[in-house]
Amino acid sequence: MNQRRGLPLKRKLYINGEWVEASQYVSLRSPYSEEVIAEIPAATAAEVEKGLEAAFHARKAMAVMPSHQRASILEKVALLLEERAKEAAEIIATEAAKPITAAYAEVARTVQTYKFAAEEAKRIHGETIPLDAAPGGEGRIAYTVREPIGVIGAITPFNFPMNLVAHKVGPAIASGNSVILKPAGQTPLSALFIAELFQEAGLPAGALNVVTGSGSLIGDKLVTDDRVKKISFTGSPAVGIGIRNKAGLKRVTLELGSNAAVIIDKDTDLDKIISRCVAGAFGFQGQVCISLQRIYVHEQQFDAFVDKFVLATKELTIGDPLDPKTDVSALITPKDVSRTIEWIEEAREQGAKIVMGGYAEGNILLPTVIVEADPTARVSCQEVFAPIVLINKVKTVKEAIELVNDSSYGLQAGIYTDNIHTALAAAEQLHVGGVLINDIPTFRVDHMPYGGVKESGVGREGIKYAIEEMTELKLVVFNKN
Amino acid sequence: MNQRRGLPLKRKLYINGEWVEASQYVSLRSPYSEEVIAEIPAATAAEVEKGLEAAFHARKAMAVMPSHQRASILEKVALLLEERAKEAAEIIATEAAKPITAAYAEVARTVQTYKFAAEEAKRIHGETIPLDAAPGGEGRIAYTVREPIGVIGAITPFNFPMNLVAHKVGPAIASGNSVILKPAGQTPLSALFIAELFQEAGLPAGALNVVTGSGSLIGDKLVTDDRVKKISFTGSPAVGIGIRNKAGLKRVTLELGSNAAVIIDKDTDLDKIISRCVAGAFGFQGQVCISLQRIYVHEQQFDAFVDKFVLATKELTIGDPLDPKTDVSALITPKDVSRTIEWIEEAREQGAKIVMGGYAEGNILLPTVIVEADPTARVSCQEVFAPIVLINKVKTVKEAIELVNDSSYGLQAGIYTDNIHTALAAAEQLHVGGVLINDIPTFRVDHMPYGGVKESGVGREGIKYAIEEMTELKLVVFNKN
Amino acid sequence: MNQRRGLPLKRKLYINGEWVEASQYVSLRSPYSEEVIAEIPAATAAEVEKGLEAAFHARKAMAVMPSHQRASILEKVALLLEERAKEAAEIIATEAAKPITAAYAEVARTVQTYKFAAEEAKRIHGETIPLDAAPGGEGRIAYTVREPIGVIGAITPFNFPMNLVAHKVGPAIASGNSVILKPAGQTPLSALFIAELFQEAGLPAGALNVVTGSGSLIGDKLVTDDRVKKISFTGSPAVGIGIRNKAGLKRVTLELGSNAAVIIDKDTDLDKIISRCVAGAFGFQGQVCISLQRIYVHEQQFDAFVDKFVLATKELTIGDPLDPKTDVSALITPKDVSRTIEWIEEAREQGAKIVMGGYAEGNILLPTVIVEADPTARVSCQEVFAPIVLINKVKTVKEAIELVNDSSYGLQAGIYTDNIHTALAAAEQLHVGGVLINDIPTFRVDHMPYGGVKESGVGREGIKYAIEEMTELKLVVFNKN
Amino acid sequence: MNQRRGLPLKRKLYINGEWVEASQYVSLRSPYSEEVIAEIPAATAAEVEKGLEAAFHARKAMAVMPSHQRASILEKVALLLEERAKEAAEIIATEAAKPITAAYAEVARTVQTYKFAAEEAKRIHGETIPLDAAPGGEGRIAYTVREPIGVIGAITPFNFPMNLVAHKVGPAIASGNSVILKPAGQTPLSALFIAELFQEAGLPAGALNVVTGSGSLIGDKLVTDDRVKKISFTGSPAVGIGIRNKAGLKRVTLELGSNAAVIIDKDTDLDKIISRCVAGAFGFQGQVCISLQRIYVHEQQFDAFVDKFVLATKELTIGDPLDPKTDVSALITPKDVSRTIEWIEEAREQGAKIVMGGYAEGNILLPTVIVEADPTARVSCQEVFAPIVLINKVKTVKEAIELVNDSSYGLQAGIYTDNIHTALAAAEQLHVGGVLINDIPTFRVDHMPYGGVKESGVGREGIKYAIEEMTELKLVVFNKN
Repeated sequence: MNQRRGLPLKRKLYINGEWVEASQYVSLRSPYSEEVIAEIPAATAAEVEKGLEAAFHARKAMAVMPSHQRASILEKVALLLEERAKEAAEIIATEAAKPITAAYAEVARTVQTYKFAAEEAKRIHGETIPLDAAPGGEGRIAYTVREPIGVIGAITPFNFPMNLVAHKVGPAIASGNSVILKPAGQTPLSALFIAELFQEAGLPAGALNVVTGSGSLIGDKLVTDDRVKKISFTGSPAVGIGIRNKAGLKRVTLELGSNAAVIIDKDTDLDKIISRCVAGAFGFQGQVCISLQRIYVHEQQFDAFVDKFVLATKELTIGDPLDPKTDVSALITPKDVSRTIEWIEEAREQGAKIVMGGYAEGNILLPTVIVEADPTARVSCQEVFAPIVLINKVKTVKEAIELVNDSSYGLQAGIYTDNIHTALAAAEQLHVGGVLINDIPTFRVDHMPYGGVKESGVGREGIKYAIEEMTELKLVVFNKN
Repeated sequence: MNQRRGLPLKRKLYINGEWVEASQYVSLRSPYSEEVIAEIPAATAAEVEKGLEAAFHARKAMAVMPSHQRASILEKVALLLEERAKEAAEIIATEAAKPITAAYAEVARTVQTYKFAAEEAKRIHGETIPLDAAPGGEGRIAYTVREPIGVIGAITPFNFPMNLVAHKVGPAIASGNSVILKPAGQTPLSALFIAELFQEAGLPAGALNVVTGSGSLIGDKLVTDDRVKKISFTGSPAVGIGIRNKAGLKRVTLELGSNAAVIIDKDTDLDKIISRCVAGAFGFQGQVCISLQRIYVHEQQFDAFVDKFVLATKELTIGDPLDPKTDVSALITPKDVSRTIEWIEEAREQGAKIVMGGYAEGNILLPTVIVEADPTARVSCQEVFAPIVLINKVKTVKEAIELVNDSSYGLQAGIYTDNIHTALAAAEQLHVGGVLINDIPTFRVDHMPYGGVKESGVGREGIKYAIEEMTELKLVVFNKN
Repeated sequence: MNQRRGLPLKRKLYINGEWVEASQYVSLRSPYSEEVIAEIPAATAAEVEKGLEAAFHARKAMAVMPSHQRASILEKVALLLEERAKEAAEIIATEAAKPITAAYAEVARTVQTYKFAAEEAKRIHGETIPLDAAPGGEGRIAYTVREPIGVIGAITPFNFPMNLVAHKVGPAIASGNSVILKPAGQTPLSALFIAELFQEAGLPAGALNVVTGSGSLIGDKLVTDDRVKKISFTGSPAVGIGIRNKAGLKRVTLELGSNAAVIIDKDTDLDKIISRCVAGAFGFQGQVCISLQRIYVHEQQFDAFVDKFVLATKELTIGDPLDPKTDVSALITPKDVSRTIEWIEEAREQGAKIVMGGYAEGNILLPTVIVEADPTARVSCQEVFAPIVLINKVKTVKEAIELVNDSSYGLQAGIYTDNIHTALAAAEQLHVGGVLINDIPTFRVDHMPYGGVKESGVGREGIKYAIEEMTELKLVVFNKN
Repeated sequence: MNQRRGLPLKRKLYINGEWVEASQYVSLRSPYSEEVIAEIPAATAAEVEKGLEAAFHARKAMAVMPSHQRASILEKVALLLEERAKEAAEIIATEAAKPITAAYAEVARTVQTYKFAAEEAKRIHGETIPLDAAPGGEGRIAYTVREPIGVIGAITPFNFPMNLVAHKVGPAIASGNSVILKPAGQTPLSALFIAELFQEAGLPAGALNVVTGSGSLIGDKLVTDDRVKKISFTGSPAVGIGIRNKAGLKRVTLELGSNAAVIIDKDTDLDKIISRCVAGAFGFQGQVCISLQRIYVHEQQFDAFVDKFVLATKELTIGDPLDPKTDVSALITPKDVSRTIEWIEEAREQGAKIVMGGYAEGNILLPTVIVEADPTARVSCQEVFAPIVLINKVKTVKEAIELVNDSSYGLQAGIYTDNIHTALAAAEQLHVGGVLINDIPTFRVDHMPYGGVKESGVGREGIKYAIEEMTELKLVVFNKN
């Protein structure tokens, strides 16, 4: 990183196993300092075409590569990343303004993600089908195989610029596909860094291509090109639905937004959970798909919870993402600062109380605690993606569940309770992709099935689950008659 | 059926467990005799809305019904259908002009399909997830469940008017969903008949609704309505892609067309396979998704194969679908007769030889054998859905595989060979959803995974596989820390 | 049953599909009335040999029978049993002194067991193995199949004379094996009745053989004969271990005894659970493998629990098993009456209080409630298999768990608690085959995995699980190199 | 190894994480040079007791260790072994007289085995059980977990002294058990070497204990001690059956012997397969469980096959196991030399022709090819475990299959054929644990299910399969009613 932090660094496109000079560049600035940190290629249609062509060609080499070799390459990437963890974390912290401690955590998880991918590469299998279970099916041997689908277009967001790339590239390579990757505009460096590692690990040319630049230009090309067999996108619902509606028969996995909630039942030991709730709400400035945005507290605990929560939030350190003491830093863009200030104001006008924060210092929105916001306020019903948390009073868990479900999203939700009946009812009634009993909704480990219902998305990630959606089931029948 | 064959029978819509008088009707005519066989409701937007509302409301009752009860209902439907097989077969034969013997076979398979659905209803399950496989995941119990997604919009074709309804309604009910079903315009009677059986079997009101009428009006409503969480469609690629592009975040399963092929290697014992090939090509007038449309014969066997095939085809009986001796009857619409005649002419002009058939008698297109048609002719590259088969000469199996794959479709393909290396290579290289070694591509039993690649569709049917696509995976995590 | 209850009925052996006159007979008496109810063959070594020979020969026909036919036969048996439920229940009630209401419940469960077997017959399958996950494994197609192992020797107990036969014969037939069945000496009629149904259902001759008579003679022969590939035994630990040590390389499944316990936490709503606990303790006179024998109640609830339990127990009706009002009837043998009286006396001498019952009327041991028995008393540490229940006071759930685990058995255990942490800890720490949260240990449905740890046995039953142990895994590898 | 090859090295017992001086020692000699290569502890009953106690105590630490830690330890062992491959290979070559090239191959496979174990450690999971599939099971959440069984007694053979230890210790540690390992008398050094690696990798004290010495003393103790919950044994049928009959309710996995066969059909390209057949027959002097012992050649190919086989065998280099050019070296004991010479003589007397070899030079039995041996000769019907191969002429594949099956063993069998029908018939009819189409029976990769039928053993190894047999299935049910 030294050089990168010294001089703006001009990066190249990674196409067909080579670093290719681009025809045009844009400056990438630090969200925190606004300094230029790199010059990034803005790929033209012709350059994207080259990436597509490379991926299309490489799909054949990938499809016939033995799984232990695919695994070896992914394992090597994990190993290299572990070795270069410091550099990787600094890239993330610099381009995304992610506090460096969180950036290290992301790198560690990314290592895990590639290791899981390496391991799952060797476990892709089908089953035998007892065709003689139906009259007319006698005398046959039948089994299924999972074949790679070919070229996968991956479109990744800024908030986990390394690990969410891994959640698409990892399973794609694991299952013998080739990839063309369009990283988020603000976080190309993490993606390009990973490409270096794959290059060093010996991935065949063209099996991974990274094209940076305009989301609409590149995205459109990937979504509409016939050679791309699947789009895996993580980002906003609006863009996600747009992709889905243009993608024709392509497969599409969408990991979209959420306004994740937790419920605090009356019997909860608050001291045990406060720090975890605070971390869930403000980690990486709340710019996490499953960031804790809404907290529903039983009325018996409400006042105590708010007090303790605010107290703990005050302990957070605001500042430079590269400072290891920093908990909260700049939002990803100045636009997001003004948007969230506007949303906070709207909530205040509708009667919410801003108990803490509510304003920005530079590009940093201070951790903001809002009490009793109206469910129709945008801070409540939309995804804030900022260090804003709402705390609301409820009379019963039943009421809280209804409020959690009264959302167009449904990614994950948590509930703290000691009562087994309440816990099981919540597990059943919360309409989300993942229910966390006695935990915040922000919990994720990289091999678990992850994905939402409603507008939170379509499909599941978590390596094994992603691999299923990146492979075609083929039935093979030998007729012995 | 007696009464149905005597007087035109006015049928009603089946909405919310009741037979509802419609505001408008259209006449349904026999494809064979062109007589009016029934008056069928042409549902208005308001009537479709009632069906949607009923399904939306019933989804709750279905979601909480124990699986053994869902299984019981489906088992009862299977039993009732077995008892009324004659009536069921005559309905199919009458409205679809499907030869009665084939109609009986369809009824027998439909019984199987509902039985498999009953059984799979009791086997929907998740797995436990060892979260401690990743650092940070210790001290937790986690498992997945599969929850019904809610309302399923089913749009079914004319060619298996009873069994393809079963392949959507069966798994939908098995997995605790409710259904709104739009059967093909020409074959509403089979669907309405099944509704009677579900009613008798005790399915809760609203869990199955049958709305007949305009495909575009009803289809559009189902595809765009927010209450419908999944569309399961079997039909043409054009309509399928249209649905996909309007469906937003809805799940969509599409079982589209094909120009299925078989390869005959040089060592094949022709006498053993001819009758099966003829049946695969001309069964139900070739109006089967995996009907045998293209035959690639090794040059050493080509002449012998054509001779034997034509000879066997000449044995087929043409006529009234209700006559048990009939093998081939009328196409589903007069338009299809003229379309296929036009396609045959095009092939002839391009140099193909029409060895047999090639013309129509009334609405019956005579079984047509075309030799050496150009791959670009519509009879070759599009789905003929008619009793037309192409026989082509190849020098090697390798060449044949390339020709089979040179198609925008990829549902199933077959190969006859004694050589194990050839067989395994074909299993690997044929780019289709199902490879049949020593069988025609027309093979299907109802529990096997079934579905295509490329423009042949998206998703898999076969009860267990359909159920997966009709349920949401939910992760439940108990934190013990 | 009429004739059976009128005149002693002479039954025959069922060998090779025929009812065979035996060379010697013994009288079977009602445990309740001591009247002779039938004359039962006491098979000689030569007769057992005929059964073995028949089974050995029939294994070939079974191994090649398509799974849908095996399923059909089992489905037919389920249907026939449903039709003849009254007769079946009366046989059970008569020969086992099982109260007729419980006998009907057993018949209903037996129907389920055969239905599950029919369904699982069609789902026996393997998986494909990605051999290229290891260097040296490239270029291969590999899959596993499950083949029937051949002849299964089934030895069944008296307590569920119909359903525990079904748990062995059902999966054996489902998986294409043949069976030689030795039912308990006191309950041959249920087994012979089922043989009739299989005969009527069209099972091939020799696929099921029933030989009644001396346990040691027949058992020894089955256990040591080379043609028998697996012994499936349900009965006492002593006999089970003896079988295991003589069986050589044969597979052996043992479902042995238990002294099942339940824990009652301090927060439990007693009124909601008392009747279920009473049923668990005294159902079929406690002669159930997972009968509730030990109850550990939190000290805060202890007195109330004992009072309510005794009150509810007093409501039980004692009497003739054929009377629908009867809850508790005779023990299976007079010897068991004297044994249990002796055990009760021993406990009393060691300081236990006999709160209720403790003596016999004829062959009926009155429902007996013992408080604070010493853990070393035989009523506590051995399997009582009688209507005796122990209630003990504990200070904590932790203590209770230790007491439950301090047993040479480990089949199932239950805990009633509202606390999720307690429940999850119990699930982890109870060392048994099945943990029931908020239920008695006596819960069983017939498709769940069922079996114990420690001296409670080896292997699991529950159709699918039993089938795994009745089939051999074979790996098939096609080398494409 | 340098020091080891210089001075005899005194090794210690590995108990409870420490290297413990033993009370008595025996000299270990090279099978090739007969030099003393080490002094090995001959554990006394008291020393074995210490190992048992350590393992029994350590089982608790292992049972609660998160799976990612278990995986880390195993991964570390794999890594260390990779780094010390040369040393490891020399140990194997020295103590077992395994040619060094084969020893290197074993080390590479052992690395794979531990890696697979590391990966499978993280994939041990259960499934949810839909209890509501049966009446009476409504309103419940149920899932299964796999718990470690506790202490595993592993008894390993000399022929793969490192990899067969890995196949027991790997899955045992992966699944959270502790182990007491008794390696073969001739190959303790490999086992002790692995213990060093586990120690360095941070395995908790007592989780692995290695006790060397008398097979009968140590084996008996392990088999009869109540703290040992499972015996995993690889070795001879006689010892295996003895273990089984003393083991009571303990679980037992037995990987016993075989006289593996391959069939050569008439259409086979001999030149392509000869070298592989020679390797399968003579690799490590035929001392491999799935060594190729019997070859059945179609009469059309018989003479050619024998000629080519003998020619290729003549190319083998005989000599010092540490010489990289050596293909065949000394048998494991002089007793085996005299035994095999005696068997060869017996065959010769019965009319077999010894086409090549048949005598020994020092402790090396020369590669021996026997033609037309009688099926009753011990070289045919028993496991030779020596460089002896039988070649027999058959008229048909059918006859060959019958001859292969006419054995008390059934581990693996191969067939070379181009005909798909022949191949599928062989896959079905060969009564063995693994059928290899177009390969020798000697094929094994370490993650595939491996194990035999008949006297070849009980249970399956292959990490995932071994883990299943080293864990208890526990059902957990939450009653929501």
